Amino acid sequence: MNITDLISSIDLNQVGQEMRRLISRLYPICRSITGNGFRETLDIIKEYIPLEVHEVSTGTKVFDWTVPKEWNIKDAYIKNCKGERVVDFLQSNLHVVSYSVPVRKKMSLSELKGHLFTLTDHPDWIPYRTSYYKEDWGFCLSHNQFLALNDEEYEVCIDTSLEDGHLTYGEYCIQGTSEEEFLISCHACHPSLCNDNLSGMALATCLASSLMPLSLRYSYRFLFIPGTIGSITWLTLNEKKTSRIKHGLVVACVGDSGKSTYKKSRKGEAEIDKAVIHALKETGQPFEVIDFFPYGYDERQYCSPGFNLPVGCLMRTPHGRYPEYHTSADNLDFVKLEFLQNSFLKYLSVVNITENNKKYLNQNPKCEPQLGKRGLYEAIGGQKESAVSQFAMLWVLNLSDGHHSLLDIAERSSLRFEIIQNTADILARRHLLVEC
Amino acid sequence: MNITDLISSIDLNQVGQEMRRLISRLYPICRSITGNGFRETLDIIKEYIPLEVHEVSTGTKVFDWTVPKEWNIKDAYIKNCKGERVVDFLQSNLHVVSYSVPVRKKMSLSELKGHLFTLTDHPDWIPYRTSYYKEDWGFCLSHNQFLALNDEEYEVCIDTSLEDGHLTYGEYCIQGTSEEEFLISCHACHPSLCNDNLSGMALATCLASSLMPLSLRYSYRFLFIPGTIGSITWLTLNEKKTSRIKHGLVVACVGDSGKSTYKKSRKGEAEIDKAVIHALKETGQPFEVIDFFPYGYDERQYCSPGFNLPVGCLMRTPHGRYPEYHTSADNLDFVKLEFLQNSFLKYLSVVNITENNKKYLNQNPKCEPQLGKRGLYEAIGGQKESAVSQFAMLWVLNLSDGHHSLLDIAERSSLRFEIIQNTADILARRHLLVEC
Amino acid sequence: MNITDLISSIDLNQVGQEMRRLISRLYPICRSITGNGFRETLDIIKEYIPLEVHEVSTGTKVFDWTVPKEWNIKDAYIKNCKGERVVDFLQSNLHVVSYSVPVRKKMSLSELKGHLFTLTDHPDWIPYRTSYYKEDWGFCLSHNQFLALNDEEYEVCIDTSLEDGHLTYGEYCIQGTSEEEFLISCHACHPSLCNDNLSGMALATCLASSLMPLSLRYSYRFLFIPGTIGSITWLTLNEKKTSRIKHGLVVACVGDSGKSTYKKSRKGEAEIDKAVIHALKETGQPFEVIDFFPYGYDERQYCSPGFNLPVGCLMRTPHGRYPEYHTSADNLDFVKLEFLQNSFLKYLSVVNITENNKKYLNQNPKCEPQLGKRGLYEAIGGQKESAVSQFAMLWVLNLSDGHHSLLDIAERSSLRFEIIQNTADILARRHLLVEC
Repeated sequence: MNITDLISSIDLNQVGQEMRRLISRLYPICRSITGNGFRETLDIIKEYIPLEVHEVSTGTKVFDWTVPKEWNIKDAYIKNCKGERVVDFLQSNLHVVSYSVPVRKKMSLSELKGHLFTLTDHPDWIPYRTSYYKEDWGFCLSHNQFLALNDEEYEVCIDTSLEDGHLTYGEYCIQGTSEEEFLISCHACHPSLCNDNLSGMALATCLASSLMPLSLRYSYRFLFIPGTIGSITWLTLNEKKTSRIKHGLVVACVGDSGKSTYKKSRKGEAEIDKAVIHALKETGQPFEVIDFFPYGYDERQYCSPGFNLPVGCLMRTPHGRYPEYHTSADNLDFVKLEFLQNSFLKYLSVVNITENNKKYLNQNPKCEPQLGKRGLYEAIGGQKESAVSQFAMLWVLNLSDGHHSLLDIAERSSLRFEIIQNTADILARRHLLVEC
Repeated sequence: MNITDLISSIDLNQVGQEMRRLISRLYPICRSITGNGFRETLDIIKEYIPLEVHEVSTGTKVFDWTVPKEWNIKDAYIKNCKGERVVDFLQSNLHVVSYSVPVRKKMSLSELKGHLFTLTDHPDWIPYRTSYYKEDWGFCLSHNQFLALNDEEYEVCIDTSLEDGHLTYGEYCIQGTSEEEFLISCHACHPSLCNDNLSGMALATCLASSLMPLSLRYSYRFLFIPGTIGSITWLTLNEKKTSRIKHGLVVACVGDSGKSTYKKSRKGEAEIDKAVIHALKETGQPFEVIDFFPYGYDERQYCSPGFNLPVGCLMRTPHGRYPEYHTSADNLDFVKLEFLQNSFLKYLSVVNITENNKKYLNQNPKCEPQLGKRGLYEAIGGQKESAVSQFAMLWVLNLSDGHHSLLDIAERSSLRFEIIQNTADILARRHLLVEC
Repeated sequence: MNITDLISSIDLNQVGQEMRRLISRLYPICRSITGNGFRETLDIIKEYIPLEVHEVSTGTKVFDWTVPKEWNIKDAYIKNCKGERVVDFLQSNLHVVSYSVPVRKKMSLSELKGHLFTLTDHPDWIPYRTSYYKEDWGFCLSHNQFLALNDEEYEVCIDTSLEDGHLTYGEYCIQGTSEEEFLISCHACHPSLCNDNLSGMALATCLASSLMPLSLRYSYRFLFIPGTIGSITWLTLNEKKTSRIKHGLVVACVGDSGKSTYKKSRKGEAEIDKAVIHALKETGQPFEVIDFFPYGYDERQYCSPGFNLPVGCLMRTPHGRYPEYHTSADNLDFVKLEFLQNSFLKYLSVVNITENNKKYLNQNPKCEPQLGKRGLYEAIGGQKESAVSQFAMLWVLNLSDGHHSLLDIAERSSLRFEIIQNTADILARRHLLVEC
């Protein structure tokens, strides 16, 4: 079975349910860029795909960075003078600023306030904050919770550890015919946030498990890594391998109701850029293409000038463009089955294009070959309308000069890639085309 | 006399009448891709230009194709039980599917129906159908004729022969100073159809007879060939010569009332493409430019990837975009004098541009030459308006750096090619320019 | 002090007043392409900047041209039979066609008429006319003056001399660190015409005096020359030096109320073209960019194909596009303080961009450098909004690959050049960037 067969036979509803279920299981876990929450997450994903788990020691130099201490959390709360938990980590793991140092202290509201973060615009939502590379601590809470705090003494407890340990990441490579790779990378370091980026992790997992049994042209490498430091670490450890990366996509924010958005690779005209844009065009659904910019997700590392890999980011609404982004409102309700399915199908279409985007040489380049004698042409000529399939044959033959790929031909002819691909198959079987 | 002189002195009305007259004479003949109708057609054209007639034997291999048997027809009809001809080839040669095999048989209406072709949308028109490469037979008739057929037995006669013979084509080359050629090709295989393509044959004939007496830079090769198999045959027999083809146009559908349409060569940016587009722009009349696509007329052979010649197609309404296309309604009324004249003039303009589109070198490239001392500049300076001719001189001098052709300069300056051409002539005569 | 410091500290009002004052002083002088009016003008400019004055003898060959005779004028008038001066050079130096030969003669109105020039559309305005390269004479007068002339005998006197002498021009070069030059050229040959081009002379003078004390990367060469023959003469005498010219601008028509207009260099994509367009975009004010054309001011010589220097023209309303152009209505009222200031500031911005438009190499090209450990990044991550300065850092780092200049980065990021420039400074000081 190949990718084209898969697309025609896949039960999208089942895949969608599976993504939803995985997101629900991962949602309660308190992840950060290191620690047991990340390990627990990979353990669950391992139930779906045979992930290889890597542990990189604290203190390891990774380009300009250093693998940080490992962070783990048991509990955290703010108790009022009655001993009631007015802010409670057990209610939401967003309540604690990620990477907060251990604290156990009594303090006045005014002293505490410097460590509290709220969202005045959305008084019911808890913001998400981190302090990875500067030792600090804090609590996030809804603005309504904040307003209810009395001017009294509070007992603050953050039961965390920040110690030498490891940075953990998951990697899974499906071997294709070629050593050339298609990289699918997602950040897996966010705690209870669904669109950013449990949706990406679920899509990557189900994509991997769908591709696993297929006959594939490219090898597919899936990375589940902590944002920024994870891609920097992987690139440090795998610098030599990066030249194999022919195509790449960062998967993030794929479950919201917004239209699909493709952020191009830094190269801008890489095959992956053309393939994604063509796939989105073919859906007939609205979409947006934006040029590369050097902030966002891990594409900023893959596309740093020293690597400049052909890695784009295919998402729905980009980070920071929806109010729920990095708040407790990015929850299980925010991510919908239909949008996860829709995103998944688009990823499959992109894979289908890159898998099949070959160049052929017309074996009868001088004048058209006689299609009729091969049964490839309507016998009675002169009709005003000719079947699409005949136009496709003429396009493929005319442009199969060694310079145009099937994707180029699809673009040039305004015909669907699938039609061009099928046509090339038929013509190759009749020895009218040979793959370059 | 050169092409520019011709344009300024030509009697367009006379040329138009001549084209109309030729179309009227050729209209009744039953042409097909081979046979006596084609020969008779060339004989008439020979009265205008010294056409060389080539005969290529049935069975000759021409690239992937084989020259077919020769087809000739004497008569064809469907008679009802009263012996009346209800469909009669003598009334219209469109009534018989071209290349129909001989038939002489009685049959019921239901058996006959599988061989009848009509146009339900235009119940008064007879469609045009062919079956060149699959042995079959059929009749074309108006839908009203079809509806009038009773359920009775019919006598069907197609008195044709399909035998070893020849494919015939006409060729005429006017020798210019250069061995480089301008190819003008038209298909001459359609029976009583006026716009497609008696108009093209008439235009090509009159263009050839107009260019014949001129001093020409390029050699002009005119081809009157059966569609598809004709160009394939010519390309097979003349493969070596094709490298001489510097410019080329397929002439078709040049007599209808639609706006001019230029279908670019596969190269897309060839000099012929620029020249035609510039000529059309200069008319101030509406026109359309369309990118190359690998179906249509013989440009699909000239632009097959193994040749990729700079051959476009300058027509009015493209094939298949007007309802009369390939029906009996493409008749003598459909093609109008004024549109034939208008198309003819556009062809002359294109020839004028390519004939004169040279590159020059400014002999005083450092600063402007002093035009005033040569009497080329107004003596009293400071006026707000300077004559177009002075701007033209400055443009030609500034851009004559060996990289810009006169057509480039006309495009860049938004001045008419004729002005740029005249200006270059003046400056060259004063030794301010030298042709590259 | 460098150009950036200058921009932040300059008293624009003072510069504007200075330009106005200089224009007022120069306005009454009768300039032409040679002669004492031109010398007197340079003497006044020498009060502001240490101009080097060059004298080139009549008869000197300059490329295709010859330095003309020197022209001087004492008086000119037309007296009626009552002895009244009905046209009087002492009232306006526009009354005499520049380079008129000496005349002292009585003549009838009808004979005189062939030497009179008026503007019927603007009956109160005196036109400006010249006859440099053809020996002739004439008077310019308002159409109302003309209509008031009776049919009587007139005494015509033009007390001029046209003798071997010199062509005079002024030149001033500020030495920068580099031998590469920024050329600022203005024509200084027009008599009492303010926008064309006392405004340009005033702007060039004040720009030179402002740049004089600065630390500069480029050398700045200012030319005050007669139009056409002046640039041809300078280019002849300095042909070898022209390869040093990295950027250039012709300054003209910079005091009217129209929007800024930039006429691109012949190259079209030179750094000066990009710099000016970027500077104009950043103003947020309307502006127009026009492609090079080979007439206008001295850019036509600098951009002749044998030189093809990167010299554009930054003006307000282009020559010939305002009715006051080359008439007595281009007077002191036509040129306004605010527009002179506005133009001046735009020139400073262009200089700022070219002075600072360097290429850098990111010293940590593989993945992002860790900005946080250098205090360059907000410590608490996860906020929705990140400061512009952080985006700027990421842009500069990502695109500092040796191929992109700071101007390229500003364009690509849609951030102001100043922000990009400051960011590059900060990053270079931290050794994250090194200039290429």
